[in-house]
Amino acid sequence: MTRGKLDAPVVLGSARAEHIESMIGQLAELSEGGPGVTRLAYSPLERRAHALFAQWMSDLGCSVTTDAAGNTIAERPGAVPGRPAIGVGSHLDSVYSGGRFDGIAGVVAGVELVRLLAEAGMTLEHPLRIVAFAGEEGARFGQACVGSKLAAGLTARHVLDELTDRSGTSLSAAMREIGLDPDSAAAQGWDADDWAVFLELHIEQGKVLENSGAAVGPVDLISGSTRLSFVMTGRPSHTGGTPMLNRSDALAAAAEAVLIAETLASDDTHRGTRATVGRLSVEPNSITTIPGRVTFSLDVRDIDADRQRRAVTEIVGRVMATCRRRKVTLEVNLIADTSPVVMPLWVRQALVAGAKELDVPYRVLGSGASHDAQMINTFVPTALLFVPSRDGLSHVPDEWTEFAQVATGVDVLARAVIGLDKSMTASERVASKEEL
Amino acid sequence: MTRGKLDAPVVLGSARAEHIESMIGQLAELSEGGPGVTRLAYSPLERRAHALFAQWMSDLGCSVTTDAAGNTIAERPGAVPGRPAIGVGSHLDSVYSGGRFDGIAGVVAGVELVRLLAEAGMTLEHPLRIVAFAGEEGARFGQACVGSKLAAGLTARHVLDELTDRSGTSLSAAMREIGLDPDSAAAQGWDADDWAVFLELHIEQGKVLENSGAAVGPVDLISGSTRLSFVMTGRPSHTGGTPMLNRSDALAAAAEAVLIAETLASDDTHRGTRATVGRLSVEPNSITTIPGRVTFSLDVRDIDADRQRRAVTEIVGRVMATCRRRKVTLEVNLIADTSPVVMPLWVRQALVAGAKELDVPYRVLGSGASHDAQMINTFVPTALLFVPSRDGLSHVPDEWTEFAQVATGVDVLARAVIGLDKSMTASERVASKEEL
Repeated sequence: MTRGKLDAPVVLGSARAEHIESMIGQLAELSEGGPGVTRLAYSPLERRAHALFAQWMSDLGCSVTTDAAGNTIAERPGAVPGRPAIGVGSHLDSVYSGGRFDGIAGVVAGVELVRLLAEAGMTLEHPLRIVAFAGEEGARFGQACVGSKLAAGLTARHVLDELTDRSGTSLSAAMREIGLDPDSAAAQGWDADDWAVFLELHIEQGKVLENSGAAVGPVDLISGSTRLSFVMTGRPSHTGGTPMLNRSDALAAAAEAVLIAETLASDDTHRGTRATVGRLSVEPNSITTIPGRVTFSLDVRDIDADRQRRAVTEIVGRVMATCRRRKVTLEVNLIADTSPVVMPLWVRQALVAGAKELDVPYRVLGSGASHDAQMINTFVPTALLFVPSRDGLSHVPDEWTEFAQVATGVDVLARAVIGLDKSMTASERVASKEEL
Repeated sequence: MTRGKLDAPVVLGSARAEHIESMIGQLAELSEGGPGVTRLAYSPLERRAHALFAQWMSDLGCSVTTDAAGNTIAERPGAVPGRPAIGVGSHLDSVYSGGRFDGIAGVVAGVELVRLLAEAGMTLEHPLRIVAFAGEEGARFGQACVGSKLAAGLTARHVLDELTDRSGTSLSAAMREIGLDPDSAAAQGWDADDWAVFLELHIEQGKVLENSGAAVGPVDLISGSTRLSFVMTGRPSHTGGTPMLNRSDALAAAAEAVLIAETLASDDTHRGTRATVGRLSVEPNSITTIPGRVTFSLDVRDIDADRQRRAVTEIVGRVMATCRRRKVTLEVNLIADTSPVVMPLWVRQALVAGAKELDVPYRVLGSGASHDAQMINTFVPTALLFVPSRDGLSHVPDEWTEFAQVATGVDVLARAVIGLDKSMTASERVASKEEL
């Protein structure tokens, strides 16, 4: 039984859109210049967002700590000492020129959830921990979910030295610059025994909810993602002086590669595969010089692990053939590779029960994007709840979710948390009786 | 008759490779960081190269002036006052990460030519002017031959405001920053009556001379060049969340455009057409965002003016169809458009005569690249002389011509200048007798 003050009946209020709007607005101000929000992984701006979150949680009576990876964890104690925690959270960093909801909505949902519990004077049996993960976006270092992977103990120390941003700064150097210790970060993962369950609210970044009219979407599957970097080296020379047949044009080879990836992912045998060249740069990048060197990324996603890896192999094979024909040298590096994940049913069912309790239309769906939930799920049973994205847009300044839609998500999340608190308490009691 | 001191027999020495090597080496040091030489049009570095050239010419007894466009002109007086000048020259700016010979070889050839005349104590009938043109390379502002076009009165004032570099600086602003006045530059072209003939020595930037074993190449035709800038706007969104069929990927559209241009220029009906996308940039340029905006250049060259324009029209038409199919918005702007040019035979014949006199193997050939000679030829009869480029490479750090090969070019150039001085003097005498 969830306990209210003096054991009076506890009435949980509804999440308020204006609270959510205010918090999202304050966070959006912490951005580099240019369109949308740019608050990169392991940057000073990201730390300022974490500090703001920490302040909010502290004001709500939580104790706040930062782990070695830079994840900020706010704890609201449970009624029964020694129980593992219920976790709720997402991330506060963004891509270049991204939106104000990706990740942020899930952290703000956690703050609003604690506010609702505090206003109702409700204490859960389990401790509740609201988490802001560090460095979820792969935009800066090419690897997604850095903070949650470190929490899950999935990142070897040397990887932090090997991942670099556009300016050549390694992830470990970036960590040191903001006062984090990469050695500790790689060594000190979270203790699985300390966590009972984890829930992440996130914007969908697709159109399924919008098209189906559902308000929330418990996620059953998260796509895997294989990320490669390609370097093509041709022969730069004068555009006027060099006949077409004598050329080794690195950009023409890269153009073929872009279309090879697109064509393969669009064919009938790859329904569900998504392949994208999102980043590309040309050297010397002059109107009158045939491109000598082109560097680009490839991101291949799938909900089928085998099809994901087959697609990568096939694209690389075709690109190699193109480069041989064009006398262009090819170098391919694996930046990151994660498999698709099936999310555990029993945690997801708590979200479904919450939606039913509130009569909120829901739809179970898959996620094309990877999320911190995927990493945490490797050691704590985890659920992921989507709220709608307008026009499916994400990673762009126009990314939008109505604040009332986030609030509805918080309400469902709150019921799920309370439901899990109750059901886990009951099963722990049964377990402890069985131990006697 | 060419006059030596005290009318003693005049013996012209041979150009010396070590002089040429020294001058080219000194100029190559005036470069931005990074590979090769970067000394952009209308930059302070370019002005320093002009100042070094001015110093050399001044040391050789020439009077040096700078015109409103920033072209530096060194004059060695002729024996007969009032005659129009014989001009010799090229440019001192470079592309990004270019070589040390493109343009520079022709200016250094002019310096060495004056040294040869001075050492022989030889004075021409006509004044000899060695010119270092400003801003020949289109790499910075997208338009080639800025200094020589201004000298030829071919550039309207507003164009100087409209052309901008990567950082958004207009050409007129760049001119002001280095102390030039764009108003005067556009208004004050050279006086055609002041010039009798012009000769430019330049590296070939192709392999024709190397393959044929010729030491020098008088040019009969210069390709035209049409330069366009394309902006494609698609819909940026999350690479994981967006199905392949829902995409408006600006980079995939641009990749098709790159291959459309290459395919068209390589087909049987376009032998001689050269089409290149040399510059391309992607926004937001993130691994996990579908490209929303891609900007790129297209350079189409041909020795046939009609085929050049037909190729451009056909490429743009096919690219428009691609963009319609892909729901990508297309904006195309014309940056520059010059027609192919036939160089006047009688000036070229002086170069051929010079090569024959010295028993230097020559080959008449066309030029794929545009040159200052093309602009000056619009108002002064002009010739262009190529020296070999190793492997045909140009606009790259590996661009190379042996210093002895440049020296051979100077020797041929010197004979051509002396020959023209004599033949023009003779015809001017005939003309003045006829006037009597």
